[in-house]
Amino acid sequence: MILPVYKDQFLIDKNITFLNFGSFGACPKPIFDEYIRWQYVLENEPVRFIAHNAMPNLETSRKALGAFLNCHHDHLVYVPNPTYAVNIVAKNFPLRPGDEILSTDLEYGACDRTWNYYCRKAGATYVRQHIGIPVTSKDQIIEQFKKGYSSKTKAIFISHITSSTALRLPVEEICEWAKSIGLITIVDGAHVPAHIPLDLSTLKADIYTGACHKWMMTPKGSTFFYAKPEFQDMFDPLIISWGYEAAMPSHSQFLDYHQMTGTRDFSAYLTVPKAIEFLKDHNWTEVSAACRKMVQDNYPVICDLLGTQPLCPINDDFLGQMCSTPINCPEPEKLHQLLFNEYKIEIPVFRHGDKVFIRFSVQAFNSQQDLDYLFATLKTLKTKGMF
Amino acid sequence: MILPVYKDQFLIDKNITFLNFGSFGACPKPIFDEYIRWQYVLENEPVRFIAHNAMPNLETSRKALGAFLNCHHDHLVYVPNPTYAVNIVAKNFPLRPGDEILSTDLEYGACDRTWNYYCRKAGATYVRQHIGIPVTSKDQIIEQFKKGYSSKTKAIFISHITSSTALRLPVEEICEWAKSIGLITIVDGAHVPAHIPLDLSTLKADIYTGACHKWMMTPKGSTFFYAKPEFQDMFDPLIISWGYEAAMPSHSQFLDYHQMTGTRDFSAYLTVPKAIEFLKDHNWTEVSAACRKMVQDNYPVICDLLGTQPLCPINDDFLGQMCSTPINCPEPEKLHQLLFNEYKIEIPVFRHGDKVFIRFSVQAFNSQQDLDYLFATLKTLKTKGMF
Repeated sequence: MILPVYKDQFLIDKNITFLNFGSFGACPKPIFDEYIRWQYVLENEPVRFIAHNAMPNLETSRKALGAFLNCHHDHLVYVPNPTYAVNIVAKNFPLRPGDEILSTDLEYGACDRTWNYYCRKAGATYVRQHIGIPVTSKDQIIEQFKKGYSSKTKAIFISHITSSTALRLPVEEICEWAKSIGLITIVDGAHVPAHIPLDLSTLKADIYTGACHKWMMTPKGSTFFYAKPEFQDMFDPLIISWGYEAAMPSHSQFLDYHQMTGTRDFSAYLTVPKAIEFLKDHNWTEVSAACRKMVQDNYPVICDLLGTQPLCPINDDFLGQMCSTPINCPEPEKLHQLLFNEYKIEIPVFRHGDKVFIRFSVQAFNSQQDLDYLFATLKTLKTKGMF
Repeated sequence: MILPVYKDQFLIDKNITFLNFGSFGACPKPIFDEYIRWQYVLENEPVRFIAHNAMPNLETSRKALGAFLNCHHDHLVYVPNPTYAVNIVAKNFPLRPGDEILSTDLEYGACDRTWNYYCRKAGATYVRQHIGIPVTSKDQIIEQFKKGYSSKTKAIFISHITSSTALRLPVEEICEWAKSIGLITIVDGAHVPAHIPLDLSTLKADIYTGACHKWMMTPKGSTFFYAKPEFQDMFDPLIISWGYEAAMPSHSQFLDYHQMTGTRDFSAYLTVPKAIEFLKDHNWTEVSAACRKMVQDNYPVICDLLGTQPLCPINDDFLGQMCSTPINCPEPEKLHQLLFNEYKIEIPVFRHGDKVFIRFSVQAFNSQQDLDYLFATLKTLKTKGMF
């Protein structure tokens, strides 16, 4: 059995049935140790670490990440999280009154807020095109998405894997279409790196952000912001600092602007090569496939239990290592707390629009017993009238 | 002898004569251990740490810091660094064409860039009023600063301790004056906390930022942003995220806006209570006084050596634990590298405008031998014609 053998690699409390890898990931010990190692390097000589060795150390890390994502390392910069990257894009996007950004109604709430905020400021509109769920096919999603297009659309913004609904969207095809009609393509791949295949050289995304601290399992606060060369000069820094009008500019304004944003401990960024090594050394392609299989085997079970339907066809086109189903629960926060406090199950119960969803993730340390325990617990709570 | 007994408390490479505490501080071991401890807590249950316990844990930390700075803890939020805080302020400051922000020509370059950027966008002017150095008295500084005032001035922005020139400015008196004529007072106290006395209840600063990761010695990337209640709603978040138009707002928009900025490891913020405890347990008021004395004793020595004058009267009104002097050196980067590579001395050599400054800091682990070695080295390099 591939999966629970990895339980000892993680630092997560073993008394907890941890079914929410999707929100913040978790660090295997060798990657966490690498984090601490870099923090000792920092304290050994803070000036060397922060001022003098920062650029070369970050470059080494970006090179490993570039090879992993199949793109040039200078087209990537590290930022704390995908929301930060989306803020860089939305703040600087040349929006004029009447312009539209085409998105879906399945996006992450923080990014909805970001686009709404900057569109409102510019007199533009953030169009959250409705995607009917359950989704039935890639074509259905693409056709529904296209309905949001108008002559005012300047760019599309779309999640590669959605958050509350855990759906893999046909972003490859959607970007292909969007580029064919001259739109800028911006993809929120928060959940993607090391979760489903990602090749930035073939994907027609002009701008892409992906968290390293989720499925790549680096420490929290490490994420990449990718932009194709022709878009790199579109973005002023979110934090104006020494990299803006730099006294000694490097070969890349993109790097100067977004890498030099004031003192911080960026050790998490430097663990990326170790994380990639960990994935390779532990045959993560197989581990991930086994996790996906467990998701696909169990998705109908939770749906039966809750009297719902899966949100999508059950296959790799639509699902990664997590799945989500509506739950008829007026107080999701209460259910979430009850599951944790009484049953030691960590699983998210989200509000999204007027619906509530429960989502489970499967990672290498999870076993079928974890899911069986979740299902038994949900049955008990259902009997008690909790939903 | 008070000072070098603390050498073993720090993690800095003992082969290096470390005279640049001012740039990034350094962590004593007990504070660093507290950092690692929180990072293990995070990995033990990432969802608890980031989503559920974040607000109460941050509140506990802000309470300790509020008591230390003599202000209410809800008037403080943590941000990564002072430049970040200044960006929040400048981005949101209600600037209109023609408006002026009055500052000095001794400010930190990253903050100059920030104000220039946002003033330019608004058609406003960032006025870098000339302060003649050497400064001779508080009154001289105040009078020179006032010359920059006009009827268009909306706010003042000033460093409490300057960076390249290491001068303590009479910010208490300047804020008093500015408030008396109705200006908003914004103070960059990057170098101040646990360096010189700071009481936010008596200082007439409407907005103040101070790094915890310098003289308070917390891990890198921990800084406070303080705003008086009447100014707290002036600032939209720098990163629009869940805290903006929050689904379940707390009692404070200020906290919601600036605390919830996406996934990151904010363990450094949580070490502040331990840092304050460390300062108390190790009689840091005395340690700091001994360090200031060492600075004051040695300031004339380095000036004699370089054929310059101190930048200010040598007393606590103008100096903390660092001092700076011009050096006639056309390639400061080269001198800095030489001092490090050949002599293992870490000391900053800064360009500021058309001048170059060399600045030494004295912290608990430094000894008179460190400074004597610096002086001997500078003598050698002077003989060799390096400056």
